[in-house]
Amino acid sequence: MSPNEPPAVSTSDQTAADGNLLTASCPIPITDYKEIVLAHGSGGELSHRLISKIILPQFTNELLAPMHDGAIFSLGNERLAFSTDSYVVSPIFFPGGDIGKMAVHGTVNDLSMCGARPLYLSVGFILEEGLPMEDFWRIVQSMRAAADEAGVQLVTGDTKVVDRGNADKIFINTAGIGVVPKDVNIHPARAQAGDKIIISGPIAVHGIAIMSVREGLEFETEIASDTASLNGLVQDILKACSDVHVLRDPTRGGVTSVMTEIAQSANVGILLQEAAVPISEEVKGACEILGLDPLYVANEGKLIAVVAPDDAEAALAAMRNHSLGGEAAVIGEVVSDHPGFVVMRTRVGGTRVVDMLSGEQLPRIC
Amino acid sequence: MSPNEPPAVSTSDQTAADGNLLTASCPIPITDYKEIVLAHGSGGELSHRLISKIILPQFTNELLAPMHDGAIFSLGNERLAFSTDSYVVSPIFFPGGDIGKMAVHGTVNDLSMCGARPLYLSVGFILEEGLPMEDFWRIVQSMRAAADEAGVQLVTGDTKVVDRGNADKIFINTAGIGVVPKDVNIHPARAQAGDKIIISGPIAVHGIAIMSVREGLEFETEIASDTASLNGLVQDILKACSDVHVLRDPTRGGVTSVMTEIAQSANVGILLQEAAVPISEEVKGACEILGLDPLYVANEGKLIAVVAPDDAEAALAAMRNHSLGGEAAVIGEVVSDHPGFVVMRTRVGGTRVVDMLSGEQLPRIC
Repeated sequence: MSPNEPPAVSTSDQTAADGNLLTASCPIPITDYKEIVLAHGSGGELSHRLISKIILPQFTNELLAPMHDGAIFSLGNERLAFSTDSYVVSPIFFPGGDIGKMAVHGTVNDLSMCGARPLYLSVGFILEEGLPMEDFWRIVQSMRAAADEAGVQLVTGDTKVVDRGNADKIFINTAGIGVVPKDVNIHPARAQAGDKIIISGPIAVHGIAIMSVREGLEFETEIASDTASLNGLVQDILKACSDVHVLRDPTRGGVTSVMTEIAQSANVGILLQEAAVPISEEVKGACEILGLDPLYVANEGKLIAVVAPDDAEAALAAMRNHSLGGEAAVIGEVVSDHPGFVVMRTRVGGTRVVDMLSGEQLPRIC
Repeated sequence: MSPNEPPAVSTSDQTAADGNLLTASCPIPITDYKEIVLAHGSGGELSHRLISKIILPQFTNELLAPMHDGAIFSLGNERLAFSTDSYVVSPIFFPGGDIGKMAVHGTVNDLSMCGARPLYLSVGFILEEGLPMEDFWRIVQSMRAAADEAGVQLVTGDTKVVDRGNADKIFINTAGIGVVPKDVNIHPARAQAGDKIIISGPIAVHGIAIMSVREGLEFETEIASDTASLNGLVQDILKACSDVHVLRDPTRGGVTSVMTEIAQSANVGILLQEAAVPISEEVKGACEILGLDPLYVANEGKLIAVVAPDDAEAALAAMRNHSLGGEAAVIGEVVSDHPGFVVMRTRVGGTRVVDMLSGEQLPRIC
């Protein structure tokens, strides 16, 4: 079938898996979702479904298959990581950051989560007609400052303008290239029973910072986004440990969505200790007001490391010695029970299964 | 000044050049353009102004400075090209292609214009809530087919969804990585007096295809976009020539904008022969109806090669032997007169200076 012909309507959930892709019909049962909904961008269950049913079957190859934060491949005598993210956060300026800063941090972090040393970024701007020139200029300045701080270079770019009403002020895509050191082998599927799970600091800060602005909430202390480039922190962790198994930044979908992805990738169980998860009083209070579970709220300047038990102490110490990891904590471990599932031991002593975000908690968080 | 503080208003055109960037005020005189206008995305004069005043001063480094279609740098023992483009074309399906196909072709071509062999692409989708799932699926299929045809792999991606009314159906960013062969040194500044200018085929096809759909024009023969991946054609040209100086695809802003860029980069004059520029009768007729100068209209599957006179015949033959270059033609030459300017010898025998597109001829052409 030519791509310009409309596909036949199908209610089958399985056609994409049959290998005969160009003759298959639209593999998401359109009786369920005939249209894109916000939750397809949540980082949770519907995002995964969209990716696994529509995108992966067409793009599948040995590099994309790992569902990592980026692709890793060899070119010449180097192993490279390559990653991309688009940023559509609203508002474009918020306490602690702006869309430009996030666009640099985010791709630097995706590369870092592959264990790579980020080097070069590309930038694609989509501007809405009417964007104040000074806003654009502030954003570009902010990207430069973030790139300088992370030690990366913005080397190539593109600017498109769309007519008023067909975008929302500014969207930014960044893609990045980094070099993966020879002895580093970081991958979601490497989590194994016994590994310790360490988070670099208090959770849910970015999501609550954005939500507070949108809802006009005021707290005694302003909650500012934790957006930051984590490549320095990652370098310190890699230096301190003999073998880091997994690194992930719990952005869209929060800690539980990322943990579930790892549990599924590695086919292991994960046991989290609710009481061990660091969270500030302000953020906890805001989550209560807004009716949000902080474990599903997006973070920007935090990472989760999964390391062998022998490495746990060194990893924790390395994080705590870094300015972005002062409140790092061991929050759980990988277990051989309940493979594919994340179980939380609650403060009161019970356990509950936690899952990926199933709807759209907070659109346009990043 | 912190990026979160508003910059002081300035009417000076020079502040960005003073090197003291973080204390400078917004370097485009805001009395001229306080807001982004469509022409900032035209590929013409205002695009150049936006890039040179706002973006380049912040991003400047030895890799970005050449204003090439991509950045070229060494990693390990390889020379790599890295490029990005966002696609916002409207309508998303049009005769001869769709936004997905263009998004693959465009980045493949940008890499090819650096002389690189394109290998890996990233894809960033920004989807508007409400996009029909089948449209998305057709676009993803189309990207896969285009990638297969060009011999590149889609290896990493990202999907964001924005609320209805804050985007227009779908925007796609692709970034790409390619390898530049050791003996290839292609660069706009390498054009030199005596070089021949060769175009791979008839101009203005993509722009007229899009415009015809938007204006509801009907012609005896449907005008279909010429969007195509040019990496195969480039490989053939490189094989046939001893030293290709410049390659460019005349997309936004058309042939004259690209020629002016090259004249300015290399500080040479360019003399074009209007009668030698290939154009189909249908496209010429459509341009007359629409009041457009075809030399400013966007192309997608065409390239311009600037080669030493000794290479011209071989380059032309290589193009004509390729399915995408059957109507290739020498359209002019590089001269030592009028450096920085493009002069056209018209059909009637006179000459006129042609310049970059100064306004926005056709928004959202790519």
